[in-house]
Amino acid sequence: MDDKHLNNWFNSRKERRRLLDVDSLLSKILEKDVSVLSTSITILESTRTDDRLLAKNLIKACLPYSGKSVRIGITGVPGVGKSTFIEAFGNILLKQGKRLAVLAIDPSSEFSGGSILGDKTRMENLSQQENVFIRPSPAGKTLGGVAQKTRESILLCEAAGFDVILIETVGVGQSETMVHSMVDFFLLLMLSGAGDELQGIKRGIMEMADSLVITKADGDNLTKAKAASREYQNAMHLFPPNPNGWIPKSFTCSSQTGENIPKVAEIIDSFVLHTKTNGWFEKKRHQQDQFWFHETLKELLLNDFFSNPSVQEQIQSEEQKIDEGSVTSFQAAENLFTNFINKRNGTNI
Amino acid sequence: MDDKHLNNWFNSRKERRRLLDVDSLLSKILEKDVSVLSTSITILESTRTDDRLLAKNLIKACLPYSGKSVRIGITGVPGVGKSTFIEAFGNILLKQGKRLAVLAIDPSSEFSGGSILGDKTRMENLSQQENVFIRPSPAGKTLGGVAQKTRESILLCEAAGFDVILIETVGVGQSETMVHSMVDFFLLLMLSGAGDELQGIKRGIMEMADSLVITKADGDNLTKAKAASREYQNAMHLFPPNPNGWIPKSFTCSSQTGENIPKVAEIIDSFVLHTKTNGWFEKKRHQQDQFWFHETLKELLLNDFFSNPSVQEQIQSEEQKIDEGSVTSFQAAENLFTNFINKRNGTNI
Repeated sequence: MDDKHLNNWFNSRKERRRLLDVDSLLSKILEKDVSVLSTSITILESTRTDDRLLAKNLIKACLPYSGKSVRIGITGVPGVGKSTFIEAFGNILLKQGKRLAVLAIDPSSEFSGGSILGDKTRMENLSQQENVFIRPSPAGKTLGGVAQKTRESILLCEAAGFDVILIETVGVGQSETMVHSMVDFFLLLMLSGAGDELQGIKRGIMEMADSLVITKADGDNLTKAKAASREYQNAMHLFPPNPNGWIPKSFTCSSQTGENIPKVAEIIDSFVLHTKTNGWFEKKRHQQDQFWFHETLKELLLNDFFSNPSVQEQIQSEEQKIDEGSVTSFQAAENLFTNFINKRNGTNI
Repeated sequence: MDDKHLNNWFNSRKERRRLLDVDSLLSKILEKDVSVLSTSITILESTRTDDRLLAKNLIKACLPYSGKSVRIGITGVPGVGKSTFIEAFGNILLKQGKRLAVLAIDPSSEFSGGSILGDKTRMENLSQQENVFIRPSPAGKTLGGVAQKTRESILLCEAAGFDVILIETVGVGQSETMVHSMVDFFLLLMLSGAGDELQGIKRGIMEMADSLVITKADGDNLTKAKAASREYQNAMHLFPPNPNGWIPKSFTCSSQTGENIPKVAEIIDSFVLHTKTNGWFEKKRHQQDQFWFHETLKELLLNDFFSNPSVQEQIQSEEQKIDEGSVTSFQAAENLFTNFINKRNGTNI
């Protein structure tokens, strides 16, 4: 198939997807064609049956070419300056000759806070550069659904030769735990002056970070930011050690002045070297793969169960009994489950 | 039934359980008979069918009399001095006229570290006092099983009029997360000098603590302990705030000199006052009840699935394919689940 043909397909929105085949998509992806990469991600986000089959085959075809990037998770509350940080950080990577993909997870309505993608001017400079691919991940109904699409997008981006994949999310809700389970390095952006500004950050997230960066360390804010960074560094020394032997670093940066932005890249490099040398890099990826296998299996099973209308009815009724104190949590669960099994074995639902 | 009869039953180990009935057990429990309480907990730990039915009915009968205690979780690595702390702390509670039950969760073999119950002299003084009930929880095969038995034991202890229930566990593995989900107040004991001594503590546990106490703050260790406490207090101020508005406290204590042991009781009192006033105390208990209902339901469902021999075989085979990189985690899960559903709908397994 020649380029003209392919381009024609892309110009015809209605027709393009059904006419695409795995081989042509794969070859274009391997040629680093970001427009085809973008279409391919759209296909894997689609719920249409034919798209899903195509996506499945495409991912399978991309698998042998994936895995070579460094996957970095970036989180922080709204207002911490994630976009400007990623702009500044991205430019450093580009200067090093790296190709960068940014996948932004848009917190769906169940998470508090607004969309992180609403602003059209977000990462405007970065997005116009060659060797950069910026793409919002779809807001799914379930965290598992978002996780699957994001992990699959990572594979496609890797096949398209991106050296660094940034997964960006907001540090509220549960999306940051999900992101933590799919990246090699987890970066937490924070503001100095803690207190009110930190309300959005979930407890437990600090201990997940491989590095913590206090943003907006410039002008009047510089002294305060440096002090906060020292405090966090001290606090992190008190945390239980990481099994991979890595000691999380805390420092300040400014996306305005550019101070310490290269340091983030250096620290990630030294983290990758450290964990590749002691074997944790590969070990963690294998663990993550098996983790998502089991998580997905559980989610499929639990969805199948909890979406059963008769189960839903019984759950509501048992929840009420628990609240009234007439049954324990365990007894309620056992009653419901026994009913379910009896019914399944009897009537083959 | 008179006491002589009941005592005869207890003397006849083989016969006693099958002859017991719910009404006599309940009335003895409500009379604060710890020997009957102890037998009742043995019954609920039993896997015999008749025992399980009796336990189920007994728990149901005790439910209306339960819920009035303060449930306190205590965790810390081996060597932190949990036993001596509980001895000292328990004596304070007794002096306040309170009745105290201690349920110790013995980490089963899957958790690292030795048994916390091996030492016969453990809490020897405390165990000989009136108004004290000390009982190891059974080491179950699953964390969910241990959770259920422990939560049920709490209910029985509350029906027996204990004002304070301490749930003790070792801060390794996952048992402390479980304990955190069944108590009102979660206390983390720590040693000063951190570093090596903290290896056992899991990341994430510090942010679960309602209070952190540095033990063994006496003699040569005093200065070091006070400094550690200050560091932790500073670190905890940096944590995201608790939704219940409680700011975790860090301080030192000595079970030897008794210093600050009464302070632990005061802090728990003020925590209870604080959370009862703002409604979080009841809210959290309701959340915990619903949490355990859903957790148990999930566990029953997942056990049913994962114990299926054909499922086990397919899991191993898919895990291998994932490790070889020939399939994604998600595709592997979908394949396996689709097989399962087809088989269930076809052959009614």
